[in-house]
Amino acid sequence: MNHVDLNCDLGESFGAYQIGLDKDILAFVTSANIACGFHAGDPSVMRKTVAMAAEKGVQIGAHPGLPDLAGFGRRNMAITPQEAYDLVVYQIGALFGFLKAEGIKMQHVKPHGALYNMAAKSRELADAIAQAVYNTDSELILFGLAGSELVRAGERAGLKTAHEVFADRTYQEDGTLTPRTQGDALIHDDDEAVSQVIRMVKEGKVRSRQGTDVNLKADTVCIHGDGAHALQFAKKIRKELEQADITIKAFST
Amino acid sequence: MNHVDLNCDLGESFGAYQIGLDKDILAFVTSANIACGFHAGDPSVMRKTVAMAAEKGVQIGAHPGLPDLAGFGRRNMAITPQEAYDLVVYQIGALFGFLKAEGIKMQHVKPHGALYNMAAKSRELADAIAQAVYNTDSELILFGLAGSELVRAGERAGLKTAHEVFADRTYQEDGTLTPRTQGDALIHDDDEAVSQVIRMVKEGKVRSRQGTDVNLKADTVCIHGDGAHALQFAKKIRKELEQADITIKAFST
Amino acid sequence: MNHVDLNCDLGESFGAYQIGLDKDILAFVTSANIACGFHAGDPSVMRKTVAMAAEKGVQIGAHPGLPDLAGFGRRNMAITPQEAYDLVVYQIGALFGFLKAEGIKMQHVKPHGALYNMAAKSRELADAIAQAVYNTDSELILFGLAGSELVRAGERAGLKTAHEVFADRTYQEDGTLTPRTQGDALIHDDDEAVSQVIRMVKEGKVRSRQGTDVNLKADTVCIHGDGAHALQFAKKIRKELEQADITIKAFST
Amino acid sequence: MNHVDLNCDLGESFGAYQIGLDKDILAFVTSANIACGFHAGDPSVMRKTVAMAAEKGVQIGAHPGLPDLAGFGRRNMAITPQEAYDLVVYQIGALFGFLKAEGIKMQHVKPHGALYNMAAKSRELADAIAQAVYNTDSELILFGLAGSELVRAGERAGLKTAHEVFADRTYQEDGTLTPRTQGDALIHDDDEAVSQVIRMVKEGKVRSRQGTDVNLKADTVCIHGDGAHALQFAKKIRKELEQADITIKAFST
Repeated sequence: MNHVDLNCDLGESFGAYQIGLDKDILAFVTSANIACGFHAGDPSVMRKTVAMAAEKGVQIGAHPGLPDLAGFGRRNMAITPQEAYDLVVYQIGALFGFLKAEGIKMQHVKPHGALYNMAAKSRELADAIAQAVYNTDSELILFGLAGSELVRAGERAGLKTAHEVFADRTYQEDGTLTPRTQGDALIHDDDEAVSQVIRMVKEGKVRSRQGTDVNLKADTVCIHGDGAHALQFAKKIRKELEQADITIKAFST
Repeated sequence: MNHVDLNCDLGESFGAYQIGLDKDILAFVTSANIACGFHAGDPSVMRKTVAMAAEKGVQIGAHPGLPDLAGFGRRNMAITPQEAYDLVVYQIGALFGFLKAEGIKMQHVKPHGALYNMAAKSRELADAIAQAVYNTDSELILFGLAGSELVRAGERAGLKTAHEVFADRTYQEDGTLTPRTQGDALIHDDDEAVSQVIRMVKEGKVRSRQGTDVNLKADTVCIHGDGAHALQFAKKIRKELEQADITIKAFST
Repeated sequence: MNHVDLNCDLGESFGAYQIGLDKDILAFVTSANIACGFHAGDPSVMRKTVAMAAEKGVQIGAHPGLPDLAGFGRRNMAITPQEAYDLVVYQIGALFGFLKAEGIKMQHVKPHGALYNMAAKSRELADAIAQAVYNTDSELILFGLAGSELVRAGERAGLKTAHEVFADRTYQEDGTLTPRTQGDALIHDDDEAVSQVIRMVKEGKVRSRQGTDVNLKADTVCIHGDGAHALQFAKKIRKELEQADITIKAFST
Repeated sequence: MNHVDLNCDLGESFGAYQIGLDKDILAFVTSANIACGFHAGDPSVMRKTVAMAAEKGVQIGAHPGLPDLAGFGRRNMAITPQEAYDLVVYQIGALFGFLKAEGIKMQHVKPHGALYNMAAKSRELADAIAQAVYNTDSELILFGLAGSELVRAGERAGLKTAHEVFADRTYQEDGTLTPRTQGDALIHDDDEAVSQVIRMVKEGKVRSRQGTDVNLKADTVCIHGDGAHALQFAKKIRKELEQADITIKAFST
């Protein structure tokens, strides 16, 4: 039977700054990517988010990002592979502290924002990140863009990997996401977004912006957690995936 | 036979900023307190310091501090016990990442600077820190000022604790360190400093500034690692402790 | 005729993090205290906030805070008077850059949060802050808690000063605010809050929590700008002050 | 008669971290580029550096950098032109605070590290930075790589500009610096470095790595201030430039 994981970026609040409807979205997803204090999140937010996710039975992963709180980790930075390795080990470790304190196992690691995007294309960065994950805990699952360098790096490193797909993004014929700088990067119609995911899960294909079909593995779907519409969409996709006989469950379970 | 641990704060460099003669001082100490990125240190410095300490067979501990890089963690901040708990779990975890990546066990945790000083006096902060250490790994040893609230909190929490003494600081008749704001806070004569430590280890006593003897447990001695004089003193105290039939070894060994 | 200034803390968003209903509250206040990047705010937020305030004809001031973004500048830190001087000069200067770029004059400086509170009580800190303001621009007006050390320091330094009062806080018989840690620190009834301000402006008196009247100068009232209730209250107090024949205008005008 | 300015990056210490021989190098240079707290420097360091430079009669400029203290502002970041504008206005303003407090005029602005390099090539970034400088104070002089987009942007904005050359770097036939990633990027022979500068000042030419002569304007020479060799070189180049009848003076004087 078909199955898929629904993951969401969580724990992105910082100090007095609240962002995201973390508590609400946890009702719909099966894996939580928790920010680790570099691009977002802080120690108190991390502790609370771990507790909330655990209470809901949602699997937990680290969401390491670039050291750029002002840019929310979304601005590419020319870091070296060694720097990428170091900041990923650090951030996984930091979240690991809270998981140990709560007696919870970490399921996965998913790089955030610009680090995720750079690692999708750069083999050197991807290998450094995969090695950081493997060395810290070889049982961790590496989440990366479906078909990207990051997923390949994870396989080379000996990690289990999860191919991540996006409901609301269009794809190019080479399997990459259409850059957000282009007009048709986003899918605004919710039905279309859900249909795209169902086909990706069931057939392993997505219709590219150029009109061709692209093969794609869909292990986990990225769900947004900010705003009322995000919640509605999460509810909708969950329901419609189940109606399409797709089991929603965490990647590791 | 008498024995004592010599510990030193290490890994305090940050980015392009170098501080401390880490490589040199590792030849003389038995426990290294590694900064975790809040008051000093960064992921790359942490990785390198862990590797250097491990190569020299020096036991490794986390040295969590206040989130105050500009003030090197030396300025008191009115954090809540919960905030103290959170930032200690985070920083232990971060260092733990590098230790896991290298397959090394963490020996201890010693709070840094203002966090150490505040925890020496505040039972609430001390309990929060001790609980953070215990929850993250109940096998960790908590280093705190000899006779302080922090050591007592560690015992309450069920942790092994190490009473830390200072060679170059004078003591008050209540067993606390003379504040640095006072003229005679520091012992400038190296022979006097070494003698003070030998007596603390062998007799469990220190002569207070007021002239009375104070009982004190001396499990570990804080050694400085910055500057040529610090290195000379480290060499001297190590040699003279050994000549006084005191074995120098890490607290856990 | 009686008159008073209404001031509000603005520009507290940071990067992707939004806080405060800045645009809306600008319709009701006459002076804006703009965060300068230490406890809140960033360069882009500062530029936008300056432009918004100027467009509404609201006078602009710097709102320097402690270097504690994670704590929103609300946690006391043991900084020296020299450090206070330096960080106030820096932050006034930074805002001054945006004002020069827009050709706008800075009206005032109001320290934020813990810096404001510490300066209300510590003459040394207050003098350092007042000197920083004076040296940067001797025409600036220093806003401080009514009757506090900060206002006195401003006068000693040769600055014009504005005594600030709070609508929703209760006062002690010595003229200080009831600490937030106490149960009756806040006035939850809007009518009571407005009445307190009207009496402070018209009679120069406030009824203390102990039941005695305290003399108080009320040059400017602190208005909150976060949340729907804050907006309603701003509208209400503005209307009722005007109905009580109190002119609402910026302190400098 | 020929003349040239010697400039040096100063005020790069941060908190407890010391970097650079600021006091010593001030004896040899005529313009100081003072870090403004983003890539290096802090408010206290800025105040002290301003005072030291002023005491030595050295002209003062702002040295704004990327918000990357961990990377010392040397890692390219994908900031937008608007973000570049904002962070340059902010940092000029911050330094301006200290200059106002001391009653000193700011002479120039020179972007630091990766911001300097990106602005040398990107017209959009260069225009944003030049506009930031012009809007903050149209009398400021913009220092940029000789012949770069940044200098051209300064001219377009209506600013006075200074073409900066490097003594110890080799040039490509298109007038750009040889990237540091290439083996022959640096000139290690001091005599050769001095000769290159003398020819650049007197003839407006530099021999490129490809063997051709490149035309180049040499208004100001970048001098390093860290380490004993840097000091010796500063002394040597100053002496030999003067022996070659080149007057050493600040660009604005």
